[in-house]
Amino acid sequence: MKIIFISLLTLVSFIAFNQSTIKVNERRIEERIFELAKFGKDSSGKGYRVAFTKGDIDARAWYMSLMKKAGLDVRIDYAGNIIGKRKGKNPLLKSIAFGSHIDMVPDGGNYDGCVGSIGALEIIEVLNENNITTNHPLEVIIFSNEEGGTIGSMAMAGHLTVEGLKQASQSGLTIAQGIRAIGGNPDSIQYSIRKKGDIKAFLELHIEQGGLLEKENLQIGVVEGIVGIVHWEVTVDGFANHAGTTPMNMRQDALLASSKFIIAVNEVIKSVQGNQVGTIGKIAAMPGAYNVIPGKVVLGLEIRDLSSAKIELLFRAIEKRASAIALSSKTKITFQRQANPSKPALTDKTLQQKINASAKALGFTTKFMQSGAGHDAQEIALIAPVAMIFVPSVGGISHSPKEFTKAADMANGANVLLQTILKLDKE
Amino acid sequence: MKIIFISLLTLVSFIAFNQSTIKVNERRIEERIFELAKFGKDSSGKGYRVAFTKGDIDARAWYMSLMKKAGLDVRIDYAGNIIGKRKGKNPLLKSIAFGSHIDMVPDGGNYDGCVGSIGALEIIEVLNENNITTNHPLEVIIFSNEEGGTIGSMAMAGHLTVEGLKQASQSGLTIAQGIRAIGGNPDSIQYSIRKKGDIKAFLELHIEQGGLLEKENLQIGVVEGIVGIVHWEVTVDGFANHAGTTPMNMRQDALLASSKFIIAVNEVIKSVQGNQVGTIGKIAAMPGAYNVIPGKVVLGLEIRDLSSAKIELLFRAIEKRASAIALSSKTKITFQRQANPSKPALTDKTLQQKINASAKALGFTTKFMQSGAGHDAQEIALIAPVAMIFVPSVGGISHSPKEFTKAADMANGANVLLQTILKLDKE
Repeated sequence: MKIIFISLLTLVSFIAFNQSTIKVNERRIEERIFELAKFGKDSSGKGYRVAFTKGDIDARAWYMSLMKKAGLDVRIDYAGNIIGKRKGKNPLLKSIAFGSHIDMVPDGGNYDGCVGSIGALEIIEVLNENNITTNHPLEVIIFSNEEGGTIGSMAMAGHLTVEGLKQASQSGLTIAQGIRAIGGNPDSIQYSIRKKGDIKAFLELHIEQGGLLEKENLQIGVVEGIVGIVHWEVTVDGFANHAGTTPMNMRQDALLASSKFIIAVNEVIKSVQGNQVGTIGKIAAMPGAYNVIPGKVVLGLEIRDLSSAKIELLFRAIEKRASAIALSSKTKITFQRQANPSKPALTDKTLQQKINASAKALGFTTKFMQSGAGHDAQEIALIAPVAMIFVPSVGGISHSPKEFTKAADMANGANVLLQTILKLDKE
Repeated sequence: MKIIFISLLTLVSFIAFNQSTIKVNERRIEERIFELAKFGKDSSGKGYRVAFTKGDIDARAWYMSLMKKAGLDVRIDYAGNIIGKRKGKNPLLKSIAFGSHIDMVPDGGNYDGCVGSIGALEIIEVLNENNITTNHPLEVIIFSNEEGGTIGSMAMAGHLTVEGLKQASQSGLTIAQGIRAIGGNPDSIQYSIRKKGDIKAFLELHIEQGGLLEKENLQIGVVEGIVGIVHWEVTVDGFANHAGTTPMNMRQDALLASSKFIIAVNEVIKSVQGNQVGTIGKIAAMPGAYNVIPGKVVLGLEIRDLSSAKIELLFRAIEKRASAIALSSKTKITFQRQANPSKPALTDKTLQQKINASAKALGFTTKFMQSGAGHDAQEIALIAPVAMIFVPSVGGISHSPKEFTKAADMANGANVLLQTILKLDKE
């Protein structure tokens, strides 16, 4: 009796030991990343797995077939999100959810979203291979149209509006038409909402998309929060005139004023401590000829930070600089705040600590950092505790065919995700 | 006998007196300007009498019918230039030529070129009405496709190349196709060349297209020369990256570098004395999204001055500033000089004095000035002495539907043109 009891204890501790040493399959992850990359090309062969297009639809079908092969109970919710469920021992416990997205920006890369999606599936494969059934149910979630404005996660969090459904997506379809094309139903979108507290935690593995981890030679980023994003359309009105006959001192050159404004934005953003970023990524000068002084310029201004208050503070400083530039250049500078700004989202501190501890236990170097990019986790933060695990992006390059993350780094991230899930499951 | 002789002298001096007091018909000039303005509109009703389009062709037919009514011997040369000839008393004398163009930039105004064209016709009408036959033959010339690169005058001066004929024009047709569409023949283009010395003088009445005459409240501009124009395509290569995840100090922002460059161009141009102008009128930033740091920017740089040497000097100073900007912003800035620069053209000093004297005799205030815009006279300067008469542009506005010149100013200019022709004819 005593002997049997000891053996049982040994067995239990062996299983516990076993769980902390099980590892994801690095090669399978990379092979699936390459396989997924084959879906969606534009006419010139560039990556074009834009949400709601054929490439996206085909890739989703392929991913769902893998989910089913791995034994998941797969469904598409009304917002087009793919949800694969794995039963836990205790059906009364809340789900531990994890996943990402597989849609892509035009001419994008093969890692943004994909690492978290393939990584999530890998967790299931490893649990299957090790005959582990968690206490909590698990949910692998692949959100629809992340790149077009985190549409699927926004719907799940309950604030995708009727107006939002009418917007055009990159595919040419409206969001509503697109959701229908991937098997959702925009008419019943409200039924895709998950109640606050319904999910125990949502974890997202993702490439950093920046160069900090690589620069500091670190392996794992523990995300403290996802920045808020605000966009303004900035219009600079000068006066178009003949570039040959208008003396330099009689010009109201909207492009010259815009240049001063672009530099001012850069100066304001860098004038305060912190990780805030500000960008002018778009410019159009009218009429746009060698021999005409630009009369009107339209710019796209973006500011991102973890604090909404700081974004507003920076914007007010930019407005002040713009007034001075307008006055001295005899132009008018106006700002049109764009609809649907992304609010900053903080990740859960307990989850952050669990991720960091899991990484350390695996022998990885870590960094607490912000996410400068928007993610589905940002939306889900409205209804559940969320956390994100970052792995290094080579050269800090993203939204580009040059986007690359080493197989070892993807596996490191997936192993941290796996151990964090197992830790969470013990609660 | 003696009495008769005196009477004859009186008669001759009376005719001479008569010639210096005859005046153009201001009302007829303005009515014809308005009539010409009706030709050529785009689908939204904007002025679109672009060379080789239906509007241009119809306006040319209308103008030629007026020429014929005025008794001119009208032909279209191989380059599509309209030439209306009026016999002089002495067929051995060279022609005095004058005219301008009636084609228009897209969404252009009703005065650029038109004032000189309607003004030239007015000279013929007034001579007819006063029964004056000049000693020299007169030629009214309406050059083809001025706005598309002074094509007709370039052909007449003998340097429109076979390559040039293949270029696309604003109309969508190639230059060769366009010339054919208006009744020329590109295959025989060499027969449109006029030999150097063939024409006694070419005079062009034109709106200033700038604001100097109006600003100084002057009536007549005596043009000393037409500036040379050089264009460069400037490429700024940075590195496109995610606007959220790339820290401010790790960016190679091609638009930020371009802004510094645009300001540097403005500073260099204004750093030296003179009437030189430099403009960046075109800009395109790639990929051009709120959330991507621009990786590449292409700009259009134009410099104009009466001296080619000064243009080169300014450009070298700009190149130097560009090198420093590229270095500090981790970008690459390259310059591609565009083909077919316009060389500066000086007008004939004797003709300038004749214009000035005629204007003064008519009681007008004058200013010796440069033309910042290119004109057909610039090309004809290669084969004949040329001069230009400027009249004020309201607000200095040109290449715009807001382009306007008062009827009185048009008449003033035409009267100066008339008296200058009569003065020249006495030689």
